[in-house]
Amino acid sequence: MLFANEAFYRAFADRDVAAMDGVWAAHAPVACIHPGWNALVGRDKVMASWRSILAGGAPDIRCRNAEASVFGSVAFVICYEQIGGEFLVATNVFVREEARWKMVHHQAGPTGRPTLEQDDEGGVIH
Amino acid sequence: MLFANEAFYRAFADRDVAAMDGVWAAHAPVACIHPGWNALVGRDKVMASWRSILAGGAPDIRCRNAEASVFGSVAFVICYEQIGGEFLVATNVFVREEARWKMVHHQAGPTGRPTLEQDDEGGVIH
Repeated sequence: MLFANEAFYRAFADRDVAAMDGVWAAHAPVACIHPGWNALVGRDKVMASWRSILAGGAPDIRCRNAEASVFGSVAFVICYEQIGGEFLVATNVFVREEARWKMVHHQAGPTGRPTLEQDDEGGVIH
Repeated sequence: MLFANEAFYRAFADRDVAAMDGVWAAHAPVACIHPGWNALVGRDKVMASWRSILAGGAPDIRCRNAEASVFGSVAFVICYEQIGGEFLVATNVFVREEARWKMVHHQAGPTGRPTLEQDDEGGVIH
Protein backbone atom coordinates (compact mmCIF):
# COMPACT_ATOMS: atom_id res chain seq x y z
CA MET A 1 0.00 0.00 0.00
CA LEU A 2 2.88 2.36 0.84
CA PHE A 3 4.21 1.80 -2.66
CA ALA A 4 1.56 4.22 -3.93
CA ASN A 5 2.61 6.76 -1.34
CA GLU A 6 6.24 6.38 -2.40
CA ALA A 7 5.23 6.86 -6.04
CA PHE A 8 3.60 10.15 -5.10
CA TYR A 9 6.76 11.47 -3.45
CA ARG A 10 8.96 10.14 -6.24
CA ALA A 11 6.85 12.02 -8.81
CA PHE A 12 7.01 15.12 -6.57
CA ALA A 13 10.79 14.93 -6.10
CA ASP A 14 11.37 14.15 -9.79
CA ARG A 15 9.02 16.97 -10.87
CA ASP A 16 7.41 14.40 -13.14
CA VAL A 17 3.99 15.65 -14.19
CA ALA A 18 3.04 12.47 -16.07
CA ALA A 19 3.95 10.28 -13.11
CA MET A 20 2.04 12.61 -10.78
CA ASP A 21 -1.00 12.34 -13.04
CA GLY A 22 -0.77 8.56 -12.83
CA VAL A 23 -0.63 8.64 -9.03
CA TRP A 24 -4.06 10.28 -8.75
CA ALA A 25 -7.35 8.45 -9.21
CA ALA A 26 -8.79 8.69 -12.71
CA HIS A 27 -12.44 8.12 -11.79
CA ALA A 28 -12.94 8.68 -8.07
CA PRO A 29 -13.40 12.31 -6.98
CA VAL A 30 -10.16 13.90 -5.82
CA ALA A 31 -9.16 16.85 -3.65
CA CYS A 32 -5.93 18.42 -2.48
CA ILE A 33 -4.88 20.90 0.21
CA HIS A 34 -1.43 22.35 -0.33
CA PRO A 35 0.20 24.05 2.70
CA GLY A 36 -1.55 27.36 3.34
CA TRP A 37 -3.85 27.01 0.34
CA ASN A 38 -7.61 26.64 0.25
CA ALA A 39 -8.86 23.17 -0.66
CA LEU A 40 -8.81 22.25 -4.34
CA VAL A 41 -11.70 19.99 -5.36
CA GLY A 42 -11.84 18.13 -8.66
CA ARG A 43 -9.20 16.52 -10.82
CA ASP A 44 -8.78 19.51 -13.16
CA LYS A 45 -7.95 21.92 -10.34
CA VAL A 46 -5.78 19.42 -8.51
CA MET A 47 -3.71 18.52 -11.55
CA ALA A 48 -3.40 22.15 -12.61
CA SER A 49 -1.92 22.88 -9.18
CA TRP A 50 0.62 20.07 -9.56
CA ARG A 51 1.63 21.20 -13.04
CA SER A 52 2.22 24.67 -11.59
CA ILE A 53 4.12 23.42 -8.55
CA LEU A 54 6.27 20.95 -10.46
CA ALA A 55 7.03 23.45 -13.24
CA GLY A 56 7.99 26.06 -10.67
CA GLY A 57 10.92 24.06 -9.39
CA ALA A 58 9.35 22.02 -6.62
CA PRO A 59 11.58 21.74 -3.57
CA ASP A 60 13.59 18.60 -2.90
CA ILE A 61 11.18 16.63 -0.80
CA ARG A 62 11.67 13.41 1.10
CA CYS A 63 8.98 11.29 2.70
CA ARG A 64 9.74 10.20 6.27
CA ASN A 65 8.00 7.97 8.84
CA ALA A 66 5.12 6.89 6.61
CA GLU A 67 2.43 4.87 8.37
CA ALA A 68 -0.59 3.42 6.59
CA SER A 69 -4.06 2.63 7.93
CA VAL A 70 -5.91 0.32 5.55
CA PHE A 71 -9.69 -0.14 5.61
CA GLY A 72 -10.46 -2.59 2.82
CA SER A 73 -10.24 -0.69 -0.45
CA VAL A 74 -9.55 2.67 1.19
CA ALA A 75 -6.41 3.66 3.05
CA PHE A 76 -4.76 6.72 4.43
CA VAL A 77 -1.10 7.36 5.05
CA ILE A 78 0.34 9.80 7.56
CA CYS A 79 3.88 10.87 6.86
CA TYR A 80 6.34 13.72 7.20
CA GLU A 81 7.70 15.66 4.28
CA GLN A 82 11.27 16.79 4.83
CA ILE A 83 12.36 19.76 2.74
CA GLY A 84 15.88 20.65 3.79
CA GLY A 85 15.66 21.16 7.53
CA GLU A 86 11.94 21.94 7.53
CA PHE A 87 9.07 19.53 7.98
CA LEU A 88 5.50 19.29 6.85
CA VAL A 89 3.09 16.60 7.98
CA ALA A 90 0.72 15.05 5.47
CA THR A 91 -2.40 12.96 5.19
CA ASN A 92 -2.65 11.02 1.93
CA VAL A 93 -5.85 9.12 1.14
CA PHE A 94 -5.92 6.30 -1.41
CA VAL A 95 -8.62 4.10 -2.92
CA ARG A 96 -8.37 0.93 -4.96
CA GLU A 97 -9.10 1.74 -8.57
CA GLU A 98 -8.68 -0.97 -11.23
CA ALA A 99 -6.74 -3.07 -8.72
CA ARG A 100 -4.23 -0.31 -7.93
CA TRP A 101 -4.01 2.17 -5.08
CA LYS A 102 -4.70 5.66 -6.36
CA MET A 103 -4.56 8.94 -4.46
CA VAL A 104 -7.85 10.74 -3.89
CA HIS A 105 -6.74 13.33 -1.33
CA HIS A 106 -3.59 14.99 -0.04
CA GLN A 107 -3.26 17.53 2.76
CA ALA A 108 0.06 18.88 3.98
CA GLY A 109 0.69 21.48 6.64
CA PRO A 110 3.50 22.83 8.78
CA THR A 111 4.80 20.90 11.77
CA GLY A 112 7.85 20.65 13.98
CA ARG A 113 10.69 18.21 13.48
CA PRO A 114 9.49 14.69 14.32
CA THR A 115 11.49 11.86 15.79
CA LEU A 116 12.76 10.32 12.58
CA GLU A 117 12.91 6.62 11.88
CA GLN A 118 15.89 4.93 10.32
CA ASP A 119 15.59 5.66 6.65
CA ASP A 120 18.88 4.90 4.92
CA GLU A 121 17.30 4.33 1.54
CA GLY A 122 15.27 7.50 1.58
CA GLY A 123 12.23 5.27 1.35
CA VAL A 124 9.43 4.16 3.55
CA ILE A 125 9.90 1.82 6.47
CA HIS A 126 6.50 0.45 7.38
CA MET B 1 -22.49 11.15 6.73
CA LEU B 2 -21.90 14.83 7.52
CA PHE B 3 -23.83 14.34 10.75
CA ALA B 4 -20.73 12.70 12.23
CA ASN B 5 -18.62 15.64 11.11
CA GLU B 6 -21.08 18.03 12.72
CA ALA B 7 -20.97 16.02 15.94
CA PHE B 8 -17.20 16.43 16.01
CA TYR B 9 -17.43 20.21 15.75
CA ARG B 10 -20.29 20.36 18.23
CA ALA B 11 -18.20 18.44 20.78
CA PHE B 12 -15.27 20.74 20.02
CA ALA B 13 -17.30 23.95 20.37
CA ASP B 14 -19.06 22.67 23.49
CA ARG B 15 -15.76 21.52 25.02
CA ASP B 16 -17.53 18.24 25.70
CA VAL B 17 -14.92 15.55 26.36
CA ALA B 18 -17.45 12.71 26.61
CA ALA B 19 -19.06 13.68 23.31
CA MET B 20 -15.63 13.98 21.69
CA ASP B 21 -14.76 10.52 22.94
CA GLY B 22 -17.92 9.19 21.35
CA VAL B 23 -17.10 10.80 18.01
CA TRP B 24 -13.88 8.79 17.62
CA ALA B 25 -13.74 5.13 16.60
CA ALA B 26 -13.56 2.71 19.50
CA HIS B 27 -11.91 -0.18 17.65
CA ALA B 28 -10.36 1.08 14.43
CA PRO B 29 -6.90 2.66 14.75
CA VAL B 30 -7.05 6.44 15.05
CA ALA B 31 -4.67 9.34 14.46
CA CYS B 32 -4.82 13.11 14.73
CA ILE B 33 -2.74 16.04 13.51
CA HIS B 34 -3.48 19.29 15.33
CA PRO B 35 -2.28 22.49 13.64
CA GLY B 36 1.50 22.71 13.96
CA TRP B 37 1.76 19.52 15.98
CA ASN B 38 3.40 16.25 15.08
CA ALA B 39 1.03 13.41 14.29
CA LEU B 40 -0.57 11.63 17.24
CA VAL B 41 -1.13 7.92 16.63
CA GLY B 42 -3.33 5.76 18.83
CA ARG B 43 -6.51 6.41 20.75
CA ASP B 44 -4.80 7.10 24.09
CA LYS B 45 -2.64 9.90 22.68
CA VAL B 46 -5.42 11.32 20.55
CA MET B 47 -7.94 11.48 23.39
CA ALA B 48 -5.34 12.87 25.81
CA SER B 49 -4.78 15.69 23.34
CA TRP B 50 -8.48 16.44 23.17
CA ARG B 51 -8.87 16.40 26.94
CA SER B 52 -6.03 18.92 27.13
CA ILE B 53 -7.38 21.11 24.34
CA LEU B 54 -10.96 21.10 25.58
CA ALA B 55 -9.93 21.71 29.20
CA GLY B 56 -7.72 24.59 28.12
CA GLY B 57 -10.63 26.63 26.86
CA ALA B 58 -10.83 25.55 23.24
CA PRO B 59 -11.57 28.45 20.91
CA ASP B 60 -15.05 29.04 19.54
CA ILE B 61 -14.94 27.04 16.35
CA ARG B 62 -17.40 26.81 13.51
CA CYS B 63 -17.36 24.33 10.66
CA ARG B 64 -17.84 25.86 7.20
CA ASN B 65 -18.20 24.50 3.67
CA ALA B 66 -18.07 20.82 4.60
CA GLU B 67 -17.91 18.43 1.66
CA ALA B 68 -17.91 14.66 2.01
CA SER B 69 -16.44 11.99 -0.26
CA VAL B 70 -17.89 8.58 0.56
CA PHE B 71 -16.27 5.31 -0.51
CA GLY B 72 -18.48 2.57 0.87
CA SER B 73 -17.77 2.28 4.58
CA VAL B 74 -15.01 4.90 4.57
CA ALA B 75 -15.44 8.61 3.98
CA PHE B 76 -13.49 11.79 4.30
CA VAL B 77 -14.75 15.31 4.81
CA ILE B 78 -12.95 18.48 3.82
CA CYS B 79 -14.09 21.58 5.65
CA TYR B 80 -12.98 24.91 6.98
CA GLU B 81 -12.75 25.73 10.67
CA GLN B 82 -13.58 29.34 11.40
CA ILE B 83 -12.18 30.69 14.66
CA GLY B 84 -13.08 34.35 14.83
CA GLY B 85 -11.72 35.83 11.62
CA GLU B 86 -9.12 33.12 11.12
CA PHE B 87 -9.47 29.92 9.15
CA LEU B 88 -8.04 26.45 9.27
CA VAL B 89 -8.72 23.77 6.69
CA ALA B 90 -9.31 20.20 7.79
CA THR B 91 -9.45 16.65 6.54
CA ASN B 92 -11.62 14.37 8.66
CA VAL B 93 -11.68 10.63 7.92
CA PHE B 94 -14.53 8.42 9.10
CA VAL B 95 -15.24 4.69 9.01
CA ARG B 96 -18.43 2.76 9.67
CA GLU B 97 -18.20 1.10 13.06
CA GLU B 98 -21.22 -0.71 14.48
CA ALA B 99 -23.40 0.97 11.85
CA ARG B 100 -22.28 4.50 12.77
CA TRP B 101 -19.73 6.81 11.22
CA LYS B 102 -16.79 7.23 13.57
CA MET B 103 -13.75 9.46 13.15
CA VAL B 104 -10.41 7.75 12.61
CA HIS B 105 -8.31 10.74 11.56
CA HIS B 106 -8.31 14.52 11.74
CA GLN B 107 -5.77 16.93 10.30
CA ALA B 108 -6.16 20.71 10.46
CA GLY B 109 -3.75 23.35 9.23
CA PRO B 110 -3.66 27.06 8.46
CA THR B 111 -5.26 28.45 5.33
CA GLY B 112 -6.57 31.71 3.95
CA ARG B 113 -10.18 32.81 4.07
CA PRO B 114 -12.24 30.66 1.70
CA THR B 115 -15.29 31.69 -0.28
CA LEU B 116 -17.92 30.84 2.29
CA GLU B 117 -21.21 29.15 1.51
CA GLN B 118 -24.51 30.31 2.88
CA ASP B 119 -24.59 28.96 6.37
CA ASP B 120 -27.33 30.70 8.36
CA GLU B 121 -27.74 27.86 10.81
CA GLY B 122 -24.05 27.52 11.53
CA GLY B 123 -24.36 24.02 10.19
CA VAL B 124 -23.29 22.09 7.18
CA ILE B 125 -24.79 22.61 3.76
CA HIS B 126 -23.88 19.60 1.66
